[in-house]
Amino acid sequence: MARPDGRRPDQLRPVTLTRRWSIHPEGSVLIEFGDTRVLCTASVTEGVPRWRKGSGLGWVTAEYSMLPRSTTTRSDRESVRGKVGGRTHEISRLIGRSLRACIDLKALGENSIVLDCDVLQADGGTRTAAITGAYVALHDAVNWLADRKSLVGKPAAVMHRSVAAISVGIVEGEPRLDLNYVEDVAAEVDMNVVCTGAGDFVEVQGTGEAGVFARDQLDALLDLGVLGCAELADAQRKALAE
Amino acid sequence: MARPDGRRPDQLRPVTLTRRWSIHPEGSVLIEFGDTRVLCTASVTEGVPRWRKGSGLGWVTAEYSMLPRSTTTRSDRESVRGKVGGRTHEISRLIGRSLRACIDLKALGENSIVLDCDVLQADGGTRTAAITGAYVALHDAVNWLADRKSLVGKPAAVMHRSVAAISVGIVEGEPRLDLNYVEDVAAEVDMNVVCTGAGDFVEVQGTGEAGVFARDQLDALLDLGVLGCAELADAQRKALAE
Amino acid sequence: MARPDGRRPDQLRPVTLTRRWSIHPEGSVLIEFGDTRVLCTASVTEGVPRWRKGSGLGWVTAEYSMLPRSTTTRSDRESVRGKVGGRTHEISRLIGRSLRACIDLKALGENSIVLDCDVLQADGGTRTAAITGAYVALHDAVNWLADRKSLVGKPAAVMHRSVAAISVGIVEGEPRLDLNYVEDVAAEVDMNVVCTGAGDFVEVQGTGEAGVFARDQLDALLDLGVLGCAELADAQRKALAE
Amino acid sequence: MARPDGRRPDQLRPVTLTRRWSIHPEGSVLIEFGDTRVLCTASVTEGVPRWRKGSGLGWVTAEYSMLPRSTTTRSDRESVRGKVGGRTHEISRLIGRSLRACIDLKALGENSIVLDCDVLQADGGTRTAAITGAYVALHDAVNWLADRKSLVGKPAAVMHRSVAAISVGIVEGEPRLDLNYVEDVAAEVDMNVVCTGAGDFVEVQGTGEAGVFARDQLDALLDLGVLGCAELADAQRKALAE
Amino acid sequence: MARPDGRRPDQLRPVTLTRRWSIHPEGSVLIEFGDTRVLCTASVTEGVPRWRKGSGLGWVTAEYSMLPRSTTTRSDRESVRGKVGGRTHEISRLIGRSLRACIDLKALGENSIVLDCDVLQADGGTRTAAITGAYVALHDAVNWLADRKSLVGKPAAVMHRSVAAISVGIVEGEPRLDLNYVEDVAAEVDMNVVCTGAGDFVEVQGTGEAGVFARDQLDALLDLGVLGCAELADAQRKALAE
Amino acid sequence: MARPDGRRPDQLRPVTLTRRWSIHPEGSVLIEFGDTRVLCTASVTEGVPRWRKGSGLGWVTAEYSMLPRSTTTRSDRESVRGKVGGRTHEISRLIGRSLRACIDLKALGENSIVLDCDVLQADGGTRTAAITGAYVALHDAVNWLADRKSLVGKPAAVMHRSVAAISVGIVEGEPRLDLNYVEDVAAEVDMNVVCTGAGDFVEVQGTGEAGVFARDQLDALLDLGVLGCAELADAQRKALAE
Repeated sequence: MARPDGRRPDQLRPVTLTRRWSIHPEGSVLIEFGDTRVLCTASVTEGVPRWRKGSGLGWVTAEYSMLPRSTTTRSDRESVRGKVGGRTHEISRLIGRSLRACIDLKALGENSIVLDCDVLQADGGTRTAAITGAYVALHDAVNWLADRKSLVGKPAAVMHRSVAAISVGIVEGEPRLDLNYVEDVAAEVDMNVVCTGAGDFVEVQGTGEAGVFARDQLDALLDLGVLGCAELADAQRKALAE
Repeated sequence: MARPDGRRPDQLRPVTLTRRWSIHPEGSVLIEFGDTRVLCTASVTEGVPRWRKGSGLGWVTAEYSMLPRSTTTRSDRESVRGKVGGRTHEISRLIGRSLRACIDLKALGENSIVLDCDVLQADGGTRTAAITGAYVALHDAVNWLADRKSLVGKPAAVMHRSVAAISVGIVEGEPRLDLNYVEDVAAEVDMNVVCTGAGDFVEVQGTGEAGVFARDQLDALLDLGVLGCAELADAQRKALAE
Repeated sequence: MARPDGRRPDQLRPVTLTRRWSIHPEGSVLIEFGDTRVLCTASVTEGVPRWRKGSGLGWVTAEYSMLPRSTTTRSDRESVRGKVGGRTHEISRLIGRSLRACIDLKALGENSIVLDCDVLQADGGTRTAAITGAYVALHDAVNWLADRKSLVGKPAAVMHRSVAAISVGIVEGEPRLDLNYVEDVAAEVDMNVVCTGAGDFVEVQGTGEAGVFARDQLDALLDLGVLGCAELADAQRKALAE
Repeated sequence: MARPDGRRPDQLRPVTLTRRWSIHPEGSVLIEFGDTRVLCTASVTEGVPRWRKGSGLGWVTAEYSMLPRSTTTRSDRESVRGKVGGRTHEISRLIGRSLRACIDLKALGENSIVLDCDVLQADGGTRTAAITGAYVALHDAVNWLADRKSLVGKPAAVMHRSVAAISVGIVEGEPRLDLNYVEDVAAEVDMNVVCTGAGDFVEVQGTGEAGVFARDQLDALLDLGVLGCAELADAQRKALAE
Repeated sequence: MARPDGRRPDQLRPVTLTRRWSIHPEGSVLIEFGDTRVLCTASVTEGVPRWRKGSGLGWVTAEYSMLPRSTTTRSDRESVRGKVGGRTHEISRLIGRSLRACIDLKALGENSIVLDCDVLQADGGTRTAAITGAYVALHDAVNWLADRKSLVGKPAAVMHRSVAAISVGIVEGEPRLDLNYVEDVAAEVDMNVVCTGAGDFVEVQGTGEAGVFARDQLDALLDLGVLGCAELADAQRKALAE
Repeated sequence: MARPDGRRPDQLRPVTLTRRWSIHPEGSVLIEFGDTRVLCTASVTEGVPRWRKGSGLGWVTAEYSMLPRSTTTRSDRESVRGKVGGRTHEISRLIGRSLRACIDLKALGENSIVLDCDVLQADGGTRTAAITGAYVALHDAVNWLADRKSLVGKPAAVMHRSVAAISVGIVEGEPRLDLNYVEDVAAEVDMNVVCTGAGDFVEVQGTGEAGVFARDQLDALLDLGVLGCAELADAQRKALAE
């Protein structure tokens, strides 16, 4: 009943956030949840797409992708197949929604930020690592705009909340925090929890992968998710303080 | 604070399930949640895709789509744009997962069933109507296979659970069941709940569309969702008894 | 030598035209030719595409599509295959040309109307049902524009002709009107005739599916087609009078 | 009222058929109708596509395309746009149907022939030139198969009819044969007639481009079309006799 | 050790340049290197793409394509496959770069020229024939612009260099000029050399198809390439003098 | 006239090769040429594509891609645009050809290796870094196959040569080795040289980006390229010795 890497059920893998991993983007973070490694970059364009001009509102979107051999066996590139797959679309949309929850688009002003989350190595939890890392990259990009006097509001008003995400699941009947790939495959229930730094929910997605789940199981998973997000919020604060 | 159509917060819109709406499919249901109208068909192919041959397991997938003018303003066709959009992908995947939760693929044997859920008219809740209707169409398709002696298990073993889904949300601070389009647009929190006939969860997806939500709000929404799914399970049972 | 459904060679299947089948479009008609069932909607946009601006002319186009299980066996969705097939293109173009023959684009003014013809159930003659139904939906959309004082001409000047279409063919050597699917498959010659309410031709397309045809056969088919279109023009008039 | 190039209303433009224009294909013809110039090649593959194996039947298809600057102004390449347009699809399908009308697929045996019709220069009537030229290329390809003893039937049984096509139309109220581009643009009615060498119809497609047409006009156009196809059948016979 | 067609190692195949092969384009050349036959057309648009407006600079691009049966066996059309292949892209880019090396975009003024190089028949060296022919077509198009007083500079200033290209390779250990298809397939080293009329290099691309090559081999190939390009420059001058 | 980073004209940027950067692939190398950073992975599949089965030969291909924000400004993803661009195609093909030059496909036996070269950060020379790094990743993958006794020949027979690549160019009239992005943009001539460890050429591609080049300039660039490749071959040997 022990976890494959000996962790307690409510224990995260080691989390590292490396800011300024790349020289070009306005914000860039390499985030690691154990062996999961996601490069999150924030690219700023002053101005917004044509259909949004004059609205006074900014625009934040996200794109998620996996390198073809970030996984145990190689996947075909979506560029070669000529289309973005359903899973990729779904995760990109989740990341975008989550990050828009922590930013005030009016205070951002008519600026656009694209968050690219590229999985360099996958070992479970890539979408939650992406959200957690993208928050820090977005924070840096907002500060970059502040330095150029391009924001309408103050940075703290633009980024009025922090956001982090973690996966939880039931494996061999036990609720566990931050599943790695082996656990993810074996999970009976799988849930992603996105929380603010204040402990509120931004998004909750739970799926009975191999079966169904009862209300008390759902409650236990939510408890674990809130706990994990709180620890990640701490890690984000520390990274941004450096 | 009254709902636009005068319903109580915990009240469904009128639900109708019309079986055998089409003459060709092995199962077909026109489901209506108020003005939302989805045609769900189940198409059987004896045999499974090549990569699954010899596994002894069947295969169930779903495809969701909206007619271009099912909505208040016309949307371009995805066939004309040349690709399936992110939202469509996401909903098709949700429907497929939900229906696979109620079917035993081993008892189904090496047969394939495609569930097509085409929205003829949209007024909120199209994905949950699709799941609820597709369950009945799938049930009929499984019986069609039983009549041809093509199942490995008995129909009741193949369809070992029922599944239904409903949307819930917080509008003007009030938790409400089965949002119509006007409410959906105004919702602060939006959640889709997929339950079995026994009241267990198959899938839970909650999003803070315009903000975040606290644990007690989440609990209230889950309560409403379970309630709504139980009523829909009744409606499914009645439709199948006809 | 009897027809599969016992009709006389020059007899149409029962035709029904249900106006306002959908709540959202400016014009919507569910048309049935026996078991063939096509939903025709007319969607109005005030204004025209950029390349036509300032011309004083309106714009009318059509898109035809079949639901994947409108047919006896399921077809893949064109959105999933990533492209519109040749047959679909061809029929969409035919519907568009036919409807533009009955409308005065100058009197329409700079307004755009898209006619969506979605086959919900197919049993032969879907393209001719689509043209016949789309005419009525277009008529309603033009009246909708008239109500909003958005037309340049009067409605009667805009819709200066009516248009209807029917399939004819030679089956077992016999010229027949309005082939159903079984007859269509067996036809030696297959022809679609599009006529105005005054009995003139808008479009004639005849194909020797399994062989060739002589001038007298062609003449017999044209006679039948003109007859069928006249009956459909009556049905359109009645529907519009309701 | 004179035609732009001084022809009589019932006069074809000069027609030339150059066999073996290319060294690689099993059949190749450069056909010219005045300034219209189409390269028709027939490519043989012994064997048929997988889904047709064991049927004993051969397979003939056609693909039509225009070089980007075959026209007065340049069109984008369909390969660059990433999809085949509606008009191209429609014409490819017409050519394929027309050629299949003159070949006995059983006598052809399990061989596949692709007819590529590439418009090198366009001046009206490209689709009818393509059909007329492709017939000769197909004839040569069938003889090539005969030389290799790969046919089931004799060449004359395989090619049991000849097929040719011509455009006719009503310009300034006058029915005319073989419209060039200037006439085609000005035509009130436009019709393509595909006939066998025996004078039977294979396909008839008439469109009221700018208006509608009466039965006597249709009859006059059919007369002209039959006349033109008879002359083309002569030209084909002469070319094949060389 | 003799070449398949009896040429000396440093001998070109017969080269013909037929100007004005097509009636529509502003420049058009059918170029033949032995059995290789490429139609090169230059299409002029007055004005430049939006992103280049106001720059005072013109724009020249090229597109290369092969007819499906220009080769010994038929290839699928890129339009049907829905995308342009890697080889086609690479050659189109090479042609474009080569032609831009001989034109002064400032003297051209804000005009756009597209060079379409369509291979009608392939027997090795199609890309070098395309560059050599496109130069002459471009020259004619520039003169067409001069006739309309649409150039900023004089034609001689616009076309300040000539450009031609030839393939060279090592076959059976022997450096050879202008490989035909049989030699190309057998070549150990394959190189394309693009030179100006003054003998300078515009582009050099050498590949060890079946092995590697030493500096002295590279030198011998460059010598041959320069020689061949000089002869082609003569042929271009003669063609333009007609 | 000094280089932007103070290097001598014949000096490489610091080169680092980090083997086993990723845990999943059979070979993986992070290669850095100064700020250029490319992740090269080699993915092994036992067996070859269907069309190559029974040939006794292995198969090696390469795919190159840039992360959207590896560059100074963000580029759209090719997966989102729905097609692979011309430059990407061209570089992928170059990498594949270069690596196939150093491997004996017969000695490899019927195994397939895909080399993925993903640019994490770009500062000039990404394609040459990719080739240089991919060689080391390929070497590791071949050893992985050797450990599993899946090779036909010995590893040294499979990898019978080493291969490395470097860019050279003429900037401000001066031939320089290993251009960074700033120099690349300013270069009059740009050349990529691919050499074996023995100093032979595998591929040479030179382009006069802004002008043309004379034979002596070409010679100077080739000398520099050979020099740079020799240094890289040393670095590869050292990395493989660790």
